[in-house]
Amino acid sequence: MRVALAQMHIIPGALEQNFSTMLAMIVEAKAQSADLIAFPEMCLSGYLLSDQWLDRSFCAELMAYNEKVRLASDGIAIAFGSAFVDDHINERLEDNHPHPNKDGRTRMYNAVIIVQNGEYAKRAANTDLLPEGVQPKTLLPNYRFFDDERYFFSLQSVSQDHGIPLEKLAQPYLIEVSGGRTPVGFEVCEDLWCQDYRKDGRALNITRSLVHNGADLIVNISSSPWTYLKHDARDRRIRFLTEDMPESFVPFYYVNSVGPQNNGKNIVTFDGGTTVYNSNGEPALTSERFFAPDLLIADHSKISTLQVERKEFGKIEQKYHAIISGLRYLKDMLGWSEHPEFVVGLSGGIDSAVVVTLLTAALGKDAVWAVNMPSQYNSSSTRNVAKHIANQLGIEYLEFPIESLVNAHKPVFDKLDTQFDSPEWMKQLSDENIQAKIRGTSILSNIAGRYGRMFTNNGNKLEVALGYATLYGDVGGVIAPIADLTKAEVYDLARYLNRDIFKQEVIPESLFPNALFEFAEDAIAPSAELKHDQVDPIKFGYHCAMIEAFTSFKKINAVHMLNWFLEGTLEQNLGISADLIRRWGVDDAEVFVKDLNWFTGCIRKSVFKRIQAPPIIVTSTSAYGYDIRESQLPEISSGEHQALEQQVLARKNYWR
Amino acid sequence: MRVALAQMHIIPGALEQNFSTMLAMIVEAKAQSADLIAFPEMCLSGYLLSDQWLDRSFCAELMAYNEKVRLASDGIAIAFGSAFVDDHINERLEDNHPHPNKDGRTRMYNAVIIVQNGEYAKRAANTDLLPEGVQPKTLLPNYRFFDDERYFFSLQSVSQDHGIPLEKLAQPYLIEVSGGRTPVGFEVCEDLWCQDYRKDGRALNITRSLVHNGADLIVNISSSPWTYLKHDARDRRIRFLTEDMPESFVPFYYVNSVGPQNNGKNIVTFDGGTTVYNSNGEPALTSERFFAPDLLIADHSKISTLQVERKEFGKIEQKYHAIISGLRYLKDMLGWSEHPEFVVGLSGGIDSAVVVTLLTAALGKDAVWAVNMPSQYNSSSTRNVAKHIANQLGIEYLEFPIESLVNAHKPVFDKLDTQFDSPEWMKQLSDENIQAKIRGTSILSNIAGRYGRMFTNNGNKLEVALGYATLYGDVGGVIAPIADLTKAEVYDLARYLNRDIFKQEVIPESLFPNALFEFAEDAIAPSAELKHDQVDPIKFGYHCAMIEAFTSFKKINAVHMLNWFLEGTLEQNLGISADLIRRWGVDDAEVFVKDLNWFTGCIRKSVFKRIQAPPIIVTSTSAYGYDIRESQLPEISSGEHQALEQQVLARKNYWR
Repeated sequence: MRVALAQMHIIPGALEQNFSTMLAMIVEAKAQSADLIAFPEMCLSGYLLSDQWLDRSFCAELMAYNEKVRLASDGIAIAFGSAFVDDHINERLEDNHPHPNKDGRTRMYNAVIIVQNGEYAKRAANTDLLPEGVQPKTLLPNYRFFDDERYFFSLQSVSQDHGIPLEKLAQPYLIEVSGGRTPVGFEVCEDLWCQDYRKDGRALNITRSLVHNGADLIVNISSSPWTYLKHDARDRRIRFLTEDMPESFVPFYYVNSVGPQNNGKNIVTFDGGTTVYNSNGEPALTSERFFAPDLLIADHSKISTLQVERKEFGKIEQKYHAIISGLRYLKDMLGWSEHPEFVVGLSGGIDSAVVVTLLTAALGKDAVWAVNMPSQYNSSSTRNVAKHIANQLGIEYLEFPIESLVNAHKPVFDKLDTQFDSPEWMKQLSDENIQAKIRGTSILSNIAGRYGRMFTNNGNKLEVALGYATLYGDVGGVIAPIADLTKAEVYDLARYLNRDIFKQEVIPESLFPNALFEFAEDAIAPSAELKHDQVDPIKFGYHCAMIEAFTSFKKINAVHMLNWFLEGTLEQNLGISADLIRRWGVDDAEVFVKDLNWFTGCIRKSVFKRIQAPPIIVTSTSAYGYDIRESQLPEISSGEHQALEQQVLARKNYWR
Repeated sequence: MRVALAQMHIIPGALEQNFSTMLAMIVEAKAQSADLIAFPEMCLSGYLLSDQWLDRSFCAELMAYNEKVRLASDGIAIAFGSAFVDDHINERLEDNHPHPNKDGRTRMYNAVIIVQNGEYAKRAANTDLLPEGVQPKTLLPNYRFFDDERYFFSLQSVSQDHGIPLEKLAQPYLIEVSGGRTPVGFEVCEDLWCQDYRKDGRALNITRSLVHNGADLIVNISSSPWTYLKHDARDRRIRFLTEDMPESFVPFYYVNSVGPQNNGKNIVTFDGGTTVYNSNGEPALTSERFFAPDLLIADHSKISTLQVERKEFGKIEQKYHAIISGLRYLKDMLGWSEHPEFVVGLSGGIDSAVVVTLLTAALGKDAVWAVNMPSQYNSSSTRNVAKHIANQLGIEYLEFPIESLVNAHKPVFDKLDTQFDSPEWMKQLSDENIQAKIRGTSILSNIAGRYGRMFTNNGNKLEVALGYATLYGDVGGVIAPIADLTKAEVYDLARYLNRDIFKQEVIPESLFPNALFEFAEDAIAPSAELKHDQVDPIKFGYHCAMIEAFTSFKKINAVHMLNWFLEGTLEQNLGISADLIRRWGVDDAEVFVKDLNWFTGCIRKSVFKRIQAPPIIVTSTSAYGYDIRESQLPEISSGEHQALEQQVLARKNYWR
């Protein structure tokens, strides 16, 4: 038996295009004598469609495409991911009971659909509870940006509704292979990630049921987003399965999609990582194509003899590929035939330098205009850096001093200032924000609108988290390419772009700090340049490690930080050096506590800015937007926090 | 037995304040000789907290407050809603198996906690699977703005994990009443709305199990948002229960919260509606306080003799109360001791007129500044209207002509226009958007920032849906009070404000159209006033009905509309008059089809604006923000749609 795994590039919402891609891969699989071709989860429609799933005329159209795939299965078995609206359940069961979705609508599955020779494939043991050839996803993820329970009815729910054990419903399908019939177990994405789902005292391992019911091999069709070390995560899940069913594990065929998708507030990328595991759960065959489509052909009889060495690209290299694929996705997201063109505010600082360089790498130099918008507070050195970068990239470079627009704002507020009171610091802050808004709204957004371009948000994850940006100023834009990177990662990416992509100093070394984030005399430290001698209030490196921890799966918070200070484990837990702690003076208990309160306070108080911020390309395991969901909440004072804070302050210094 | 139902005002995140509120109500309940007091779901913490639920130091603090409530239960039984982190499950079960939440974290319940005389209450039949006195919610909603599966472990999942029938776990608690023990069944919110959840061939009716296990009465603690006709919806659910268990229904005590909560993109309001139903499922006793706290005392022995007539306020009156409560909530959301002060752009059109009037009604005239920002395109009549409204309300009125700021923008684009090509219509649109951005960003947002005020978004639901507003212009603001009202509702609300709230013509009648949305010669039709003779491209009344249908539970779409045209059922299905169809000329097939495509195209293409829009107060059953979740997607052409469109066009006219 030859199995083709179609690591397909999916365009969300583009049914016809996706169907064409499938047809081409089916032709290729047939040419390579495949008996079965497996496509990823939701390959016809895309997966992260939000409430498009509630539009039943869209779902009806998708059902029509399911039929088209069935008709294309002459001479081959096709397993593909799609939604299936079960509007014939009453006929099959010959009853008139209600069988609603949990939301009262018609029951809809996130399913793997299996067809062969124009027919829906048959289960090893039939059941009228489910349509022929349609196997619903058993485990529905509801974390990060996944909302499966909002839309789909699971195999678990089918089992529960009808009081039939789940194990009975987890049947393999009989695939015709050279005259015989091979039982193949099919499952969808999360069904593999079963460790934390429980049933009858153990993990809800649907793979085990499929094998128990006779499956010779398992095919898992996924749309599982890329994260750094995802190969490793997948391999560990397979190892878990082999340990959970040590006697009976069978070869496991995992196919995953490529091509970004979005949920409004995030662009989520998919890397592929299609892999065949042998019956020991070791990778036997894997796609070499990272973030790119591939057709992997596996000869089932030879799987046991194969082994493959995983190679994992470096962290920043992977994030580079994710961002580039995100930027190239905008065209598909908009349904355009060409990539959109961009205008980027290029200040001469590191963040905008990296964004303009990424855009040029993704879309070419003709697609990018850089705009420098100096005021009296901008140094000649940052302007020279901006010009240098634009020259190196060969992109259009425009300069608009903002002084005249700043002056035009003055009369409005001079008049009001005589009439109404306001503290001096608020007026100063307002004067700074006016400059940022002139740049973001008056100039960039209007250039974008007037010449059919898009403008970018150049903020990094620390700025997004802390709200160190101006709403209607630098918070705007249609996409935030580096808003899920810490400042340390932005520097790493800048170095990577120079060294590995452009192979020249596109981004001047004068922007780079040393390992402790110190800047030489003649270097350019980060500054918003909105007033004289301004420097960022951010403790680079240290705050970078903190925001990584705060947004990690562990959701580190101030209480953990205070405990680590008391235990003397800040270095280990944050993964930073003792020198970095000294460099920022946070070994002093008072500085540490004050900074921690400032840090958490800023994150809480800036939720209102993130609500109005553009979509972020996800490059971590927890990105602001819709991956992290936030209510606006008042400060929550915790008794434990207050007690720990007193202990930290009493200790005076971290090293003591 | 006397039961006190605490229709409590909950402030999300404010544990200490909520605990104080509870203590005061407990004192009052004791004074009224109550044996049991029941508080709403998540009354200590608030319910819509988004990923605050993943912060386990917050949850630990909440657990500490659970203990404080237990210690306050001397001489009374208290049932209250809270999260419960089950970190002692291994000790209870004397095992070392993993018992994770579905996300791998420690298991956490959305629970009703029952305490009496300083002790956790005992179940009628004990189980080690669950902590004493803690009854997890059985049904976890995952629609609209609810994400319960993301955070909580349900009673269903407990049953599944341990292979113990759910019915066994649905035990009443023994409440001590004058020496004896009364078995009371407790459940949480969604457990009542069980019609669409299925188990063993019928609705998963946990009330039935509780009664089967001996409960003499049921207490349901809810945090269930207000919608229009919510009383009716609740009564219908109770009727469903009585039909599902006709022999065994028992008196049902329903307590619900008041006080808005938010999920970032929406402000969700809670009306109370606390009700005791007798054993026939009829309302016996109900709170008269709408959107306000109340302590309802019910004598269980007399419930069967009571009956109450429901009174439902009018639709626009209810929406008025929801919006006012939303505006008054901002203080709590921010953790401020005072209400924030506002600055409102007052154009002289109906939308901003209604917003400024609502704000004044909610917060008083001293809290509101109105700002009129005329350009050459603004008529003197709209300026006079703005001035009139401000005078009537007695609020500060400021005028800032925007001409000088418009002129300051010219040099930037004059220069670029010589350098780069752009079609004339894009330049024209850009000139219009510049004006909107000057108003929203340059003036309003800067006044807000400089004088510590907030500014509002004045858009209505049609403008939000169609994207008829300028990003960084009128899309901005900290809150959108009327963005879930159709234009027809905005007019209704304006009339209501004049007639019932201010009892004078605060909003001039000259802004009001007739029943067909026609404007008299001397009246002021809606216009953005961004160019000469501009009128809104919106078919008022008709598009209002369409957006209501498109965002209803039924999710009407273009295919339905085309079918209704062919069937001749547009009036019935949209709830509009034949005259309104004639008035907009959509009885002509070509006009109808063109308008429909424009309407759906606008909704799709403006998702990017909503991503960056401020929070909306929810007043319908489906609001943009986070209630409706949207991905940016390309146009999806459906074969069915195209075929129907051809049929409609062939028919030429609707009446034929």
